[in-house]
Amino acid sequence: MAKTRRVCHLLLRFLAFAATLAAVIMMATSHETATIFTVSFEAKYTNSPAFKYFVIAYSVITVYGFLVLFLPAKSLLWQLVVALDLVFTMLVVSSFSASLAIAQVGKKGNSDAGWLPICDSVPKYCDQATRALIAGFIAMIIYIILLLHSIHTVIDPLLLRKS
Amino acid sequence: MAKTRRVCHLLLRFLAFAATLAAVIMMATSHETATIFTVSFEAKYTNSPAFKYFVIAYSVITVYGFLVLFLPAKSLLWQLVVALDLVFTMLVVSSFSASLAIAQVGKKGNSDAGWLPICDSVPKYCDQATRALIAGFIAMIIYIILLLHSIHTVIDPLLLRKS
Repeated sequence: MAKTRRVCHLLLRFLAFAATLAAVIMMATSHETATIFTVSFEAKYTNSPAFKYFVIAYSVITVYGFLVLFLPAKSLLWQLVVALDLVFTMLVVSSFSASLAIAQVGKKGNSDAGWLPICDSVPKYCDQATRALIAGFIAMIIYIILLLHSIHTVIDPLLLRKS
Repeated sequence: MAKTRRVCHLLLRFLAFAATLAAVIMMATSHETATIFTVSFEAKYTNSPAFKYFVIAYSVITVYGFLVLFLPAKSLLWQLVVALDLVFTMLVVSSFSASLAIAQVGKKGNSDAGWLPICDSVPKYCDQATRALIAGFIAMIIYIILLLHSIHTVIDPLLLRKS
């Protein structure tokens, strides 16, 4: 039973690692050059602070997710992992939300602010950024599940009454 | 000692509640009418999906924060509060990040996407949204501190070795 749970846990962590890695690669390699009237411009993730934040945050959690895969089952560092999971999940939630907000403006624009959608001019760039956000969303959900599971495991009514 | 900690904990929760309430009120009441050339437009939070999300998420956590203030110290529901704290803190981090990303575009614009800053046209609206974001940031930090403290309290090496 304990072994099955351990395998499930590692599998979820591996999936999260793969999803964050895919999100970073897709977001970092997304670029497209478009010409509107006579002005040529290149759409890439460095144009938007939110997308830069996405790439940095997801890179950090990719490295972290990779390292945690090699942590021995009996290590006392697992205590620290719960706190680190929390901090890194916050980072992922934050960068995902910021990027989604910007992507929404890129897709739909904002008529009140006079911001036009850009996805008609750079459809390939938009598609790839969307795929990066989907991978990022999957990773985020897995990390939230891992975190809720950790909290469920470590919170024991007896312990709470003691403290 | 336990009583001092309990008072500190309640004080932090009250501050978080006050900050989320202030953030909701400031964001929801922010509006300004501006005339650019001959076009008149009203800037208000409902113009942006991210700001609407901010108001909804912070309203939810304001109600939650208010209810938790009246939870008895010995209640077994405190176990549930740790998990709820986690979910609601994620919600707050997410809505704050999305709103900050949009506010950044509103303030600085994005020359690559051709999105012009709007804060020069509606400075009062921008100032009030900024104040709402500052209150939201304070609330977010307090909830993260509460969450890290809960995790620190409930994670006991002995328990982890048992599980």
